Amino acid sequence: MKEFFKVKTIDQALEYRARFHPMQKEDVSLMESVGRILADDIRSDIDLPDFARSIMDGYAVKGSSTFGASEGNPAYLKVKGTVSMGESSGLSVGPGETVRISTGGMLPTGADSVVMVEHTDAIDDTTIEVYRSIAPGQNIVEIGEDIKKNEIALHGGRRIRPQEAGMLAALGIQTVTVFNNPTIGIISTGDEIVPVGETPGPGQIRDINTYTLLGLVQQLGATAIPYGIVHDDSQMLRATCSQALSECDMILVSGGSSVGTRDFTIDVITAMPDSEILFHGISISPGKPTILARIQNKAFWGLPGHVVSAMVVFSQIVKPFIEHISGQGDAAPQKNRLTARLSRNLASAQGRVDYIRVRLAHKAGIIWAEPILGKSGLINTMVKADGLIEIGMNTEGLDKGSEVEVIPL
Amino acid sequence: MKEFFKVKTIDQALEYRARFHPMQKEDVSLMESVGRILADDIRSDIDLPDFARSIMDGYAVKGSSTFGASEGNPAYLKVKGTVSMGESSGLSVGPGETVRISTGGMLPTGADSVVMVEHTDAIDDTTIEVYRSIAPGQNIVEIGEDIKKNEIALHGGRRIRPQEAGMLAALGIQTVTVFNNPTIGIISTGDEIVPVGETPGPGQIRDINTYTLLGLVQQLGATAIPYGIVHDDSQMLRATCSQALSECDMILVSGGSSVGTRDFTIDVITAMPDSEILFHGISISPGKPTILARIQNKAFWGLPGHVVSAMVVFSQIVKPFIEHISGQGDAAPQKNRLTARLSRNLASAQGRVDYIRVRLAHKAGIIWAEPILGKSGLINTMVKADGLIEIGMNTEGLDKGSEVEVIPL
Repeated sequence: MKEFFKVKTIDQALEYRARFHPMQKEDVSLMESVGRILADDIRSDIDLPDFARSIMDGYAVKGSSTFGASEGNPAYLKVKGTVSMGESSGLSVGPGETVRISTGGMLPTGADSVVMVEHTDAIDDTTIEVYRSIAPGQNIVEIGEDIKKNEIALHGGRRIRPQEAGMLAALGIQTVTVFNNPTIGIISTGDEIVPVGETPGPGQIRDINTYTLLGLVQQLGATAIPYGIVHDDSQMLRATCSQALSECDMILVSGGSSVGTRDFTIDVITAMPDSEILFHGISISPGKPTILARIQNKAFWGLPGHVVSAMVVFSQIVKPFIEHISGQGDAAPQKNRLTARLSRNLASAQGRVDYIRVRLAHKAGIIWAEPILGKSGLINTMVKADGLIEIGMNTEGLDKGSEVEVIPL
Repeated sequence: MKEFFKVKTIDQALEYRARFHPMQKEDVSLMESVGRILADDIRSDIDLPDFARSIMDGYAVKGSSTFGASEGNPAYLKVKGTVSMGESSGLSVGPGETVRISTGGMLPTGADSVVMVEHTDAIDDTTIEVYRSIAPGQNIVEIGEDIKKNEIALHGGRRIRPQEAGMLAALGIQTVTVFNNPTIGIISTGDEIVPVGETPGPGQIRDINTYTLLGLVQQLGATAIPYGIVHDDSQMLRATCSQALSECDMILVSGGSSVGTRDFTIDVITAMPDSEILFHGISISPGKPTILARIQNKAFWGLPGHVVSAMVVFSQIVKPFIEHISGQGDAAPQKNRLTARLSRNLASAQGRVDYIRVRLAHKAGIIWAEPILGKSGLINTMVKADGLIEIGMNTEGLDKGSEVEVIPL
C-alpha cells in the first residue's frame, strides 16, 4: 500500500505543517496592525510609567505622615500646592506636608502615596485633615510597574489584539513588523457545479464551496482569490492550478467527491513539477477523503466536495496550516472552546474523530448543545449550527447530559 | 439628586439602546458579505436541491429491488447505463434494474435510493450483484431536503458567517442587502497625554486609548476615525466633538479621569445643541465613571481614562450599542463564553459587577482561570489576559475551584 493511501490521524496530518515555511515579514502602521501577527519579540526601551503616577484624585503624601490617622484622630497636613497634569510640579513633600494631585498626575518628590480626596477635609486653603492611614505605595502606580525597561513586552508570533496595539502605542512604536498575510487560492471542481449567477439545469447545483471557503479564509485575516469552477477536465484543472500556484501561497481545491474528479485531482498533482502527495485520507468524519500535497513548497489541498465536510476539514486541519504559514507557530492551544451539556445520546464509530454540528440553547442557566443531524451536503445544517463538538477516536459515543466542549463556528 | 448622577446597573444602561436607530442599508456583493449584518430575511425561491441527488458512488435502484439481499443471497440487477454528472440521464429504473451513479449525480426516474459500490460486485457489463438491502431514501438527498421553496433560509439581523454566504450562493443571491457599517469617532483627552510619536516629558504618557479603542471598533467590523488628543480646554474639545459628530455615527471620548477633564466633558455635552445626558455612572468595576449622552440622535460616550476601565466598558456596554446600531438587535445571547475553574479565591464588593482579568492555563485537562491582579491603568495586565470573568452584583466573592464563565478578550 502506498504511503499516501494510509489514512492519517489529525495529529499526524498536522505534523506536516513543519514542511512549510512561514511568510515573509513586512512593516505596517500601528493603526493597521490589529489582527496581524507580530513578527518579532518587542522589548521595552523604557520604564512604563517612567514616573510615579497617582491613580486617584486626592493628596500626595509621605505615608508616614498619616500613620494612626482616623475619623476621631485626623492627621493635619500642610498643603504646599497643586500638581498640574502632564508636568513635574517642582514641589517636594516632607513629613506633615501634602500637594493636591489628580488621577494620572506625577507624584512630587518626597511623596510615596496618595490619600483619596474622600478621606480628607479642607480646613482652609493650606491645611487638610486626613481620616485614614495610608501605606507607602498606596493609590499610585510605581515607576516600571506596568512594564520594566528591557523586559519583553510582547512576544512575536502572536496575533495583535487591541491591547497589544495599546502596548505598542505605550512604547512609542508607530511601525510594526508583522508577517505577510498569506494569499489562498480557491478552486471548485465538478461537472455538476454552475456559477452563482446561473440558473442550474437538471442535475446541476450552484457553487457553494467557493463562498464558504472564501469566508473562512477571510476570517483568518488572509486574502482569498477565487478561481471559479473547473469541470472534470484535467488539462483545465492543471492550467488553473498552475495559475493559482503562481499567484498564491496555498491552494484549496474542493470537490472531486465523484470518482472521476478525484482521479483528475491526483493526476494533476502528480503531473506538476516539484510535487509530492503528503497524505490522502484523514481519520475524521466528515472529511475523510482529504488530500494534502506539497507543490513548489506550497500546500495544495484537495478538500471534499460536500460543504459540511469541506468546512470541518478547513476548521480542524487547514486552519492550523494557514496559521502556521502566517507565523503563529504550531503550539497555540484551543482557547475558544466553550463548555455545554449534550442534549441527547450520540453514537460514534471508533477509529476516527467525529465532528457533530450543534446548536446552543440556553435553558434555565444551562447551555445545552443540541446535535443537528443531517447529511454533510446540506448547507442549512451549518447555518443552524453554532459550533462543532468532537468525539474522540476511542470513544463509542457520548451520553445525554455529558459535558462537551463546543468549537464555535 | 439629578437623574444622571444616579448610577445605573448594566441592564438599565443597555435599555438606552432603544433610543438609537439602526444604520441605513446598502447592497454589497456576495464576495464582500462575510462579517456584515444581513438586513432582511431571505426566503428561498427554490427547493434545494431541486432534484434528488446521490451522496455516494454506487448504483441507483428502487429499494424494493434489494429487499432481502445479503452476502449469501445477493440481488442481481440489470445495469441500464450511467448517470453523467450535471445532467439528467434520461434513463429510468424499474424493478430489478439499476444505473451507475457518482456522488452528486441526479437520481434517474424510478430510482429512490443508492447502493454503495462497496456493497456490489459487477458480474459483467450489464449485471451486478448487490449484497445489502437498501431502504428507499437511503444514500440520497431528497428534493428540498436542504431548504424548501418559500422557507426562510436566513434571518435578517444576523452576522453573515461563511455558511450564510454559502446559503446565499446556493440561492443564487449575488448582491446582499446589509446594514451600513457604523463609523465611530475616537477622541483622547487629558493634559498628560502625548501622541505616540513623541517622547513623553516629565509627568506625560503616550496615548494608549486611541489604539485600544480603534482595535476594538475594528474587531466589530465598524470603521474607526481617530481625532487625536484634546487637552483640557473645553473650546477645543467642543470643536473636535462637533467635527466628529458631523462625520461619525457614535463618539467615544476617553480620559477625563481627572476632575478637570471630567467637568469639561460634561460641560461640552450640555452645551451642544440637541443634547441630553442619559446617565453618568454604571455600577461596574472597573469603569464606573462612564457617561452616555445622546447628541443629535447619536450616542456620545465619556469613557474612563484608565486603559483597562475603558476596555471593560467597551466590551460590556459600548459593544452592545454598536451591535444595536449595526442592526443586530438587542437579544443576542453571549454565546462565546467559555467555562473554566477559578485558580484562587476572589473577593468582590456587593452592589456592583466586578470584571476580573484572567489568564487561561490548561493543566491536566482542566482549564484554569488565573486572575491577573493589577491596577486598571496597566496595559500589560490586558496583554497577559485571555479574558474577563464577571462577579455579579449580589456576590461577595468566588471560591477557588468554582466554575466561572470567561468572556474572551
